[in-house]
Formats: sequence, C-alpha cells, structure tokens
Amino acid sequence: MTDTLLGTPVAPPSSNGKPLIGISLGDPGGIGPEVIVKALHDPVIRELGRFIVYGIDGVMTEAATRAGIRPFWFHVNSDQPPRVDSGVVVAEMDEFRSRPWNTRRPNAAAGRASLRFFDEAVAAARDGRVDAIVSGPIHKVSWKLAGTTDPGHTERLAAAFQAPRATMMFVGGGLRVALASTHVALFELRNQFTIGLVFQPIDLLNDALRNWFGIERPRIGVAGLNPHAGEHGQFGDEERRVVEPAIQMARSNGIQVEGPFPADTLFAPQRRKHFDGIVAMYHDQGLIPVKMLAFHSAVNVTLGLPIIRTSVDHGPAFDLAGSNQADPGSMKEAIRLACTLAARATVSSAPPLAVPAG
Amino acid sequence: MTDTLLGTPVAPPSSNGKPLIGISLGDPGGIGPEVIVKALHDPVIRELGRFIVYGIDGVMTEAATRAGIRPFWFHVNSDQPPRVDSGVVVAEMDEFRSRPWNTRRPNAAAGRASLRFFDEAVAAARDGRVDAIVSGPIHKVSWKLAGTTDPGHTERLAAAFQAPRATMMFVGGGLRVALASTHVALFELRNQFTIGLVFQPIDLLNDALRNWFGIERPRIGVAGLNPHAGEHGQFGDEERRVVEPAIQMARSNGIQVEGPFPADTLFAPQRRKHFDGIVAMYHDQGLIPVKMLAFHSAVNVTLGLPIIRTSVDHGPAFDLAGSNQADPGSMKEAIRLACTLAARATVSSAPPLAVPAG
Repeated sequence: MTDTLLGTPVAPPSSNGKPLIGISLGDPGGIGPEVIVKALHDPVIRELGRFIVYGIDGVMTEAATRAGIRPFWFHVNSDQPPRVDSGVVVAEMDEFRSRPWNTRRPNAAAGRASLRFFDEAVAAARDGRVDAIVSGPIHKVSWKLAGTTDPGHTERLAAAFQAPRATMMFVGGGLRVALASTHVALFELRNQFTIGLVFQPIDLLNDALRNWFGIERPRIGVAGLNPHAGEHGQFGDEERRVVEPAIQMARSNGIQVEGPFPADTLFAPQRRKHFDGIVAMYHDQGLIPVKMLAFHSAVNVTLGLPIIRTSVDHGPAFDLAGSNQADPGSMKEAIRLACTLAARATVSSAPPLAVPAG
Repeated sequence: MTDTLLGTPVAPPSSNGKPLIGISLGDPGGIGPEVIVKALHDPVIRELGRFIVYGIDGVMTEAATRAGIRPFWFHVNSDQPPRVDSGVVVAEMDEFRSRPWNTRRPNAAAGRASLRFFDEAVAAARDGRVDAIVSGPIHKVSWKLAGTTDPGHTERLAAAFQAPRATMMFVGGGLRVALASTHVALFELRNQFTIGLVFQPIDLLNDALRNWFGIERPRIGVAGLNPHAGEHGQFGDEERRVVEPAIQMARSNGIQVEGPFPADTLFAPQRRKHFDGIVAMYHDQGLIPVKMLAFHSAVNVTLGLPIIRTSVDHGPAFDLAGSNQADPGSMKEAIRLACTLAARATVSSAPPLAVPAG
C-alpha cells in the first residue's frame, strides 16, 4: 500500500450533507472509465453525493466522447489538494497521464496504474478524507504483472487494514450474500475450511445488516458445502465438523441464524425469502444466484473493514472496451449503495443521546 | 437389482399409439404417492400415455382421499400380468401391502420397498415392457438402511446397466444442464476429476439434445470448476489440465462446444441463452440455477442409459408428507418429458426410409 499523495483534506466529508465518495478508475484499458463516466452523468446518481475519481482525465474524456457526453468534471493534479464542494473531480497522477491506454489486455503498466488509483482511494478513506470508496474493475493478471501478490481488491484491503476477516458481500436482485471464501481454487479450499472461516461471514453479515441496512434482528441462512448439505453425512462430513459448529457459535453470540441448507434449495425463491442475508461457502455458490438475478446491477461490498467500500461485480471486459457498449448498471448501484451506507454509518456513529437517569 | 415379478407383457409398448410409462412410487412414507396421484389425476397428463405404478394401492388411496380425489386406477398383484390398454394400473407386491407407511422418516422398511418399486420399473424398461420410467422420490438414508451401497437412483441405474458414464441432466426453466459429477462430497471430487469425467457429460448431452430434443447441431456451454474459471490459472489449474482438454476432445468428435466459462456468468440470462445445453462440473453448480428457475417443475433425466428415465428433482419431503400440501409440478413435468422422449425415441429408432439410388 503506497501512501497517498493527496495530502490535505479541504472539504471535510459530508460538509454539505452529501457524502464524499472516492472512486478508483480501475484498469484504464477496460470498461471502468466508460461505466464511471456514464454512471456519474446520470443526474439521479450525481444528486446522491460528491465524487473524487482517482484516475486519468484523458481516458475518461475519450469514454465520454464515445458516449456523446460532454465532460462534466474538473481535474486536478493529485499533488494539489482537491476541492469537491459539489460535483465531480478527477485527481490525476502525472506518471499515468500521457501513455496510450487502449491496450485492452492484461499488462503491467495497467496493473501499476489501477493499483495506484485504488491505493489512493483507500488511503483517502483511511484518513477520513472520503466517506466511502467505490472501485472500478481491475484485471487480476495485470495486478500480478505489476508485482503485487494480492489477487484482488478484497485481499488488498484485508492486508492494508490488517483485517484478515474481511470478506465479500454481494447485493443485488433482492439478495444479500456473504462469502466464506473468495478467490481460492475450489479444491484448495479444503485446507482452509475451518469453523472460523464460516463463523466470520455470519458475524460480519449480521453486523452489516444491522448497522448498514437497518435490520434490527436479521435472519441469516447458511448454505452447506456439499450436495444436499451432505445429506446426513453421506457426501462429506464438513457440515457436521465445520458448518454446524460455526452456526452454533453464531447462535451463542445471539445471532439469528439457520442452516446448513442444501444450496440448491436455499436460493430458490420460496426459500431465500425467509432470510435477510445468506452465507455461501464459496465463490460460485454465492455468485451464481446473484448474477442470475442481477447481472448488470449487483454490487460487491467488503465486510469487516473500518471503511465502507463497494465495487462493481464485473471485470474490465477488454472485449467491450472502447465500444461504448458497456452497461453502467452495476457501477450506478455500487455508487448508490456507497452513498446510502455512508449516510447510515454517519448517523449510527454519532454519539448516543444522553438518557436522563431514571 | 432384483429380477422382475411382472412376467408376461400383455399390451406391447405403444400399442395404441401412446407410450407406456412405468412409475416407481418412491418412499411410501414421503410425498411420492401424493404427487403421483395428483399428477395422474390431471387429464392433460393422463392423455399423454398409459401408466403402471409400481407401488402400494392403499398408500395411494390414502393420498387420493386427502386430496379429495376418487381413486382412478385399477390395481393388480405384481405376479399377475397387468393389462394397461389405457389409463392407470397399480402393480402391488404382497410383502409391502399391509404395513403402516406413515413413518415419515428414513427407515429400512421404506428403503426396501422403494428399492423394490424402482427395480421393478427398471426391469420392465430393460425388458421392453414399458417405454420409459419415471421415479418417485426416495430417501438416500432409507436406501442405505435397506442395505444397498448405491447412493441414489442414478448410481443404481449405472450399476444395473453397466453404464458407468451415466449421469444426471436437469430440465427446467429453459435450462438443460448435465452434471460431470453428482452425489460426491465436494472435496472428494478432486480424486475423480479427470478429462473423461468432463468429456462424458458433454458427449451424452450432445446425444440427448440431438436424439431426444431434436436439435440437429446443439450448442453446448461448459462451466469451469474454479472461481472465474480459474482466471488464467490464478485459482486452480483444473481448467487447463482437465476441462479444456475435455472440450478439445469433444470438438474433435464434431461437437459444437465452448468453455470453460466462469459459472456465475454462464448461467446469467444474457449468457445462457446462447446454449442449447450446459455442462456443470458438480451438483450445486448445476442445481442452483435449475432450482432457482424451476423449483416446482424441474425434471431429472438420466443420460447414458439404454432406457429413458426421468424423475422428480425433489426428495420425499417427510415434513410435508400426509399434509396434502405437496406440489405435483415436478412429477407432472417428469411424466410429460418421459412421454415426449419415449415418443421421439420410437420415431428415431425406426429404420431409415429407403433412399432411391441415383
């Protein structure tokens, strides 16, 4: 994690009642610039907050031109303290300004740039200069080529905040799904599949549903790992050894949680409606339902951090980049959710009212 | 596999133009009797074929009474050759007739009965006395208590027909999904995950789409095993080592097949519509989408057998048994599909028309 170059906060967060949101551009050769420009061009979205995009003015201008949108932002050098009293500011870093970025494939330069944009946004959130961050899509191979060992945003955040419990939640199509594991080979998960791994997302999801979504006593459903949730131990003992003890531990902590349920029935309409949130054991178990219901509007939220961070749920889609065909739905929802959560968090972190002694 | 007691076929299959379908009752303490009675009571379903139910008259009569349905079938002892010129016959076995069956939990007696009903239906299909079979829901623990090592219908069929390639396909909600693996603990799959395991369902699905569904040149999509289909080998190498070679092998055999695709995007509406059928690597990967789209109407079809067999996609639901609350949707669709496939198979197995020379 590099330190930020964006030194002095000028407008303190929420100064005019609207949250200040930091947005990282993502891979400059992908669809990130296009979906950010299109999302922030929507007056409904713009109304929700104030925005600093950590990125490249030229790339955004190209995306805007292709979309027939007149650039609507100010841009500043990243070593100037930005003023974001209202509207949108693009904070640029000199080293990335003048390259051609239409490579549309994974490469080290794009990895370095997208890492830097993200790190700037994270540092701003950490230092209280923004209320929440939204990340544009990066390519994991570009990050690898740029030299980081963090496979993705979530893992980089976990490392930056020394928050090993951090995990992904997806919001979309009426579902809120937290994952017990994320970017790990399916069969490698065997070596990591512990009671703690399953307990943590139950606990974090419960906190998020209470603090961010305003649900006083959330009902949480937990999927099993194996087909038919093991069918009484016939196909795997992980339900008995791992998932059930994790659920028991969560119950002892006062969490209203049920399971493990067979994943195929848990996500069926008649079953999922009984729960405010669901914990899936692995990536595809949770993401198949979310993307079936909300392919262009699902949002990724990181749980377990001291900051609020949302993200699009798609990649940089190099095959679409430059075509003006990208759908900004997920970016709009990511911004909308970041603004909502930032507003709620501000309220809930206010000191409690003094209660007169009885 | 016991040999059938139902000796001499009287009405040869399809004698009056309608296929003759053998139906196994499933667990007599579950919802099988109820969904079979309700499905066959529907005149639209009855119109499609002629039916022999291998089961227990008394249990079906109780289900009918609870549903306000007057029994509409003849019953015969299973050692009498049944006449099924039209309508429905229930073929009973003396040993199961007089027990109380309202136990509503897994037990050995129910396991023995449901095994026997299924074996009778399978033997009838094997001997050409029925055109297709439909199986009611059994409980895997009951089967285990009854002493079989076959975990479910599909595995028992594979053993009975010495058809180790046999696998499950699910049809429902516009999807046709074949599974590379079925009832195996997720992490145990690692030891079975071979090129052949992935090639076989591609090949079988292609045959089924051509022969049973009348699609001349089916387009098949294959899911990856790992998150993001491994994202270029970053999370697991099974795509490169196993799934891609299997796809290549299928292409060399003239099959139109693409993948591996990330499972979460492959099942999204915008992607799945490009394919006539999809191959999933494991149970939940394929069944989550099917049950989200067709919770009460999905049908399980066995691929790779010399007979046609469909099944409900749900279990015996002991919690619902006896309540008259069970939804017969999946049983109706299973019967409908069996009748359709039997009719098509009869046509396609007819000798080709002679083509005049020259």
